[in-house]
Amino acid sequence: MPEIIKNIDKKSEDRHQKIIVQKYGGTSVGSVEKIKRVARRIVERQKAGNRVVVVVSAMGKTTDDLVDLANRINPNPPSREMDVLLATGEQVSISLLAMAIETIGVPVISLTGAQCGIRTSDVHKRARIDAIDTTRIEKELAAGQIVIVAGFQGINDQRDITTLGRGGSDTSAVAVAAALKADACEIYTDVDGVFNADPRMVPHAKKLNMISYEEVLEMASLGAGVLHPRSVELAEKFDLPLVVRSSYNDNEGTLIVRKNKMEQAIVKGIALDENIAKISIMEVPDKPGIAFRLFSMLAKANIHIDMIVQNTNRANVNDISFTVNADDLQDAVTVAQQFAFEVEAQKVEFDKGVAKLSIIGTGIVGNPDIASRFFETLYKNGVNIRTISTSEIKMSTLIDKEAARDAMVKVHEAFELDR
Amino acid sequence: MPEIIKNIDKKSEDRHQKIIVQKYGGTSVGSVEKIKRVARRIVERQKAGNRVVVVVSAMGKTTDDLVDLANRINPNPPSREMDVLLATGEQVSISLLAMAIETIGVPVISLTGAQCGIRTSDVHKRARIDAIDTTRIEKELAAGQIVIVAGFQGINDQRDITTLGRGGSDTSAVAVAAALKADACEIYTDVDGVFNADPRMVPHAKKLNMISYEEVLEMASLGAGVLHPRSVELAEKFDLPLVVRSSYNDNEGTLIVRKNKMEQAIVKGIALDENIAKISIMEVPDKPGIAFRLFSMLAKANIHIDMIVQNTNRANVNDISFTVNADDLQDAVTVAQQFAFEVEAQKVEFDKGVAKLSIIGTGIVGNPDIASRFFETLYKNGVNIRTISTSEIKMSTLIDKEAARDAMVKVHEAFELDR
Repeated sequence: MPEIIKNIDKKSEDRHQKIIVQKYGGTSVGSVEKIKRVARRIVERQKAGNRVVVVVSAMGKTTDDLVDLANRINPNPPSREMDVLLATGEQVSISLLAMAIETIGVPVISLTGAQCGIRTSDVHKRARIDAIDTTRIEKELAAGQIVIVAGFQGINDQRDITTLGRGGSDTSAVAVAAALKADACEIYTDVDGVFNADPRMVPHAKKLNMISYEEVLEMASLGAGVLHPRSVELAEKFDLPLVVRSSYNDNEGTLIVRKNKMEQAIVKGIALDENIAKISIMEVPDKPGIAFRLFSMLAKANIHIDMIVQNTNRANVNDISFTVNADDLQDAVTVAQQFAFEVEAQKVEFDKGVAKLSIIGTGIVGNPDIASRFFETLYKNGVNIRTISTSEIKMSTLIDKEAARDAMVKVHEAFELDR
Repeated sequence: MPEIIKNIDKKSEDRHQKIIVQKYGGTSVGSVEKIKRVARRIVERQKAGNRVVVVVSAMGKTTDDLVDLANRINPNPPSREMDVLLATGEQVSISLLAMAIETIGVPVISLTGAQCGIRTSDVHKRARIDAIDTTRIEKELAAGQIVIVAGFQGINDQRDITTLGRGGSDTSAVAVAAALKADACEIYTDVDGVFNADPRMVPHAKKLNMISYEEVLEMASLGAGVLHPRSVELAEKFDLPLVVRSSYNDNEGTLIVRKNKMEQAIVKGIALDENIAKISIMEVPDKPGIAFRLFSMLAKANIHIDMIVQNTNRANVNDISFTVNADDLQDAVTVAQQFAFEVEAQKVEFDKGVAKLSIIGTGIVGNPDIASRFFETLYKNGVNIRTISTSEIKMSTLIDKEAARDAMVKVHEAFELDR
């Protein structure tokens, strides 16, 4: 469920200048030199006649270093305190980036999550944004300042610091852009845009000039990894044009918009998620509502489940299998075991040797040739398909992790995505 | 002028437990091991039946490292952004210390300056505390939590982050203790307490068991350096007992209270301030209010002046000399030059080769033997006295910096402070 941004609908004032929200990730601000370069880039964008709000992540590996430090003190640090600690990472980057912009002689101000009114839910380490009070940001923009906002962080109703979890800074950027009714949100990263497959895995992957929210959402949630799904969902909800582009060059990037009018190619991209695991609960007594009970227990534990398969082995018992992000495996197994104990299922098994390979594109579901070409390619290359799931715009298969990368390249070629 | 702590006078509830505020400086929390040791110490104090609030500084050299990082980006970083940056240092220590206490199994919560309601003036890098809203701290204490507070930081009326400048964490600790009406404020440091001279300069310096606010204030402001004068002034104003003790052992430390009843030794201690400089404005036209004008210009620039001498050379013109902290020299010279230009004085000179040597003790001013023994000792050792100033409890001399350390040891011996 995407974040809900309640922003007071201001009287539509004449806006002489566009509002642009830019987001720079940790690698883009990973050193003093990089911060200076990003500063120049931001100033250029402002001098071109825009009001600019910049969302930044923590420098380079700062967050990892802070996590290590915490773990040396407490192997299981309290989430609330972890958020207090991690939020310092972005607070350092906003102040340094503001200092860098100041040397160019342009008015600038940094704001923490608390200061720019990012209110979140109370779930530490993976809070969701509830509302953004843009009063302070708008006041500073009106005063001609470039506004630098700390990504990844907010505050809950008690004014305790929260962090947004994976993809947090992207989500901050889109939420701030939505609340400000910005004209565009630009996500700067270390690649040139959204590719039709991960270039690290598929050498002939091509950059897309334009893609729809729905398509990039499937790409992202299936592991292409450029943008976090939360941020794309949020952009779609507010019809906010997203641009993904490199912070190292002036290439055009990929524009992500509501409807993709160029439907020549049905298969737009291919995605591989290797960071998943499969959990199976064997011989679950077949009673009404029993699957719902399992999945609500998992939801309460904040575990996102993905592909679900239910097999009937014999009368009155089912095997229930589902996939989760590999990082959630331990938590998910704990919940599954508790569930198995409560409903008197036979046992819980898990498998980390799986990967999910998917093709994405508007119209896939209505075109049987696509499915057959996909499955045929896997078959010809000796890849065993364990599970299939489909949606309007994607088709996913669960396959052996060992075979996954090769399979990805073959499927990429089969759909001529390398041309 | 000491900070003013406006705290709402709560109905005097029965307090079954004492409230103790402890302050640990940067060296006391300078490593993972030290943080763990401090955590155990804090828990012991709570288990002994107290409610404990702990104020901490940034770990070790963190603040210096952040300043270096800022200077690599901007040789003259904006004060507001510097405060955003520096405040992360304490935010890291509070979260880590809370994590360390949590491993011992004791409820604990960390609060930033903003979260524990430390409201300050708007002068970045050297803000003064205006008020503390203790609602949050008291709520957490009532819930049985140890409360860890970030020292050195607060927020101004705009909710912008401010820092308190030199001695900031001591001031935070005393202000929090005063606002909570705490039973004591314990300042943990790397020495055993307040000594009658700086042990690094005078080998036979002795630790004092008890000293009055007034005396320690003179010691501190004259460079003995254990406690910042702001914190002592504040403690005196609120009649709050201060304890200075080592974070490395269980020695008793020094108790600082309003009246010192043990007046056997008139000279209680000796202090040397080497970090000062003298500024002279030559041939200032002698008009009413002209000195006031200079000193109000200096006050506006937040420059604290110390010894003041006015010499009349010839009719209608004076030379005005004063001393300032060496760190303020550049700013002070700028102000002095502006003043000299405005009033048509002849020129401005400055001298960094001076130091201030002082003796401190209740009753010094009423005992002429003291002054003569002090001056005689300096004279016998060939030390030239440039300026003298006295107060109720101290007598200071401005002497050559080169001769100062030797002179200090001789004066220490002359008053039998080494016995």
